[in-house]
Amino acid sequence: MTYCVGIKLDAGIVFLSDSRTNAGVDQVRTFRKTHRFERPGERILVVQTAGNLALSQAVVSALRSTFQPESHGITLWNAKTMFDAATVAGEAVRSVYRHDSAAMQSFGLEFNLSLIVGGQIRGEPPRLFNVYNVGNFIESTAETPYFQLGEAKYGKPILDRVITANLSLQEAAKCALVSMDSTMKSNLSVGLPLDLVCYGADSFVIDQHKLIDDQDAYFSSIRRSWGQQLRKVFDELPNPQWWSTR
Amino acid sequence: MTYCVGIKLDAGIVFLSDSRTNAGVDQVRTFRKTHRFERPGERILVVQTAGNLALSQAVVSALRSTFQPESHGITLWNAKTMFDAATVAGEAVRSVYRHDSAAMQSFGLEFNLSLIVGGQIRGEPPRLFNVYNVGNFIESTAETPYFQLGEAKYGKPILDRVITANLSLQEAAKCALVSMDSTMKSNLSVGLPLDLVCYGADSFVIDQHKLIDDQDAYFSSIRRSWGQQLRKVFDELPNPQWWSTR
Repeated sequence: MTYCVGIKLDAGIVFLSDSRTNAGVDQVRTFRKTHRFERPGERILVVQTAGNLALSQAVVSALRSTFQPESHGITLWNAKTMFDAATVAGEAVRSVYRHDSAAMQSFGLEFNLSLIVGGQIRGEPPRLFNVYNVGNFIESTAETPYFQLGEAKYGKPILDRVITANLSLQEAAKCALVSMDSTMKSNLSVGLPLDLVCYGADSFVIDQHKLIDDQDAYFSSIRRSWGQQLRKVFDELPNPQWWSTR
Repeated sequence: MTYCVGIKLDAGIVFLSDSRTNAGVDQVRTFRKTHRFERPGERILVVQTAGNLALSQAVVSALRSTFQPESHGITLWNAKTMFDAATVAGEAVRSVYRHDSAAMQSFGLEFNLSLIVGGQIRGEPPRLFNVYNVGNFIESTAETPYFQLGEAKYGKPILDRVITANLSLQEAAKCALVSMDSTMKSNLSVGLPLDLVCYGADSFVIDQHKLIDDQDAYFSSIRRSWGQQLRKVFDELPNPQWWSTR
């Protein structure tokens, strides 16, 4: 399985993904799910993938190419807006669907592939999209500034409590890491290393792309402190006084 | 949807369930999912249900009856052990399956019904079981002292961080309420009022059965403090210092 989160802030966009893939509990492997498409100074795009790994690689491969017949020659490399880029990504998903879905169906396999597509193309502010397996998509707003892919539920409560569009990139990165920690703690199919990409609005260069493994001092300290402090807060909450102690 | 949790401690068992049922986003209603079967001094059983409401009511109705042909006359009222009681509950699930599954299939509906069955029958310590839609079941252990039904993922991280068998009933009730709060915050299909049942080991009487609505002072204060303190802990965690502030 997978856990990806993309957070659109006034200050830019934060992307975080794990790198574990598995078929059942065997064949556990490491594949990175965050893909960069960039022409510094002109366009910075990041695509996160979730779903069947062969489908994910097929769609990323299509997006890397400089010609996509199904998009009438529009690609991530020449799209004029992020909306066009999301359309291109959706068309790539549909192209993979046309190629693979019948064969998958004959094995009883579901076509599961979804994307987060975010970034900035000169002339526009940064934008963030969630592309569905159907190939259509939605865009984030100030009220709903983040999207998740994959094992989204474990890590959603902390995002709902903390994320607002006016956070700094660092605060949002911290929140994404806490959300990832909760997910990894409760679900074996999400695992290290992590890809953290931070893009600062109007910079047209990736501020930070950090690969976080179990040696990472900051992430280790966040995990430890968060667990300890959460436990401390929990212990300090009063017990119910509805009935006599037992 | 539904969220139920049952926690087996050395001190007894805590059960918490929400009461929201819905068909899509329409037909949102309140139905309680915690059912008591008790002969004070001799046996205390609690059954929590999740799944299709008609199926849940059918299984509870079967369990309330004093004769169950499919269990060779063994019922919750005369079972000698909690294992036998879980077997009776599983047989009741299978009986409902035989009665309803074909008709449901013809409407493309899944047979979704699962139970938590816990309590104590004189001669044994308290025990806790999770009965699947297939009718078979597992029992909790010291290492895995809790079961969840329904929308389990949002509220799992806090259980994983806090629950151990040596907690008091009050601490476990508090943890269950925090877990419920996280679930309600991120999922509309889980809602008030809540049923909280606490059973103290060897008491053979329900210590506490509390119906918690939005007027409940303790739950309101827990929700508020937990949210505020979580946010405070989050703010106090250091930001990543990997790159210059923006």
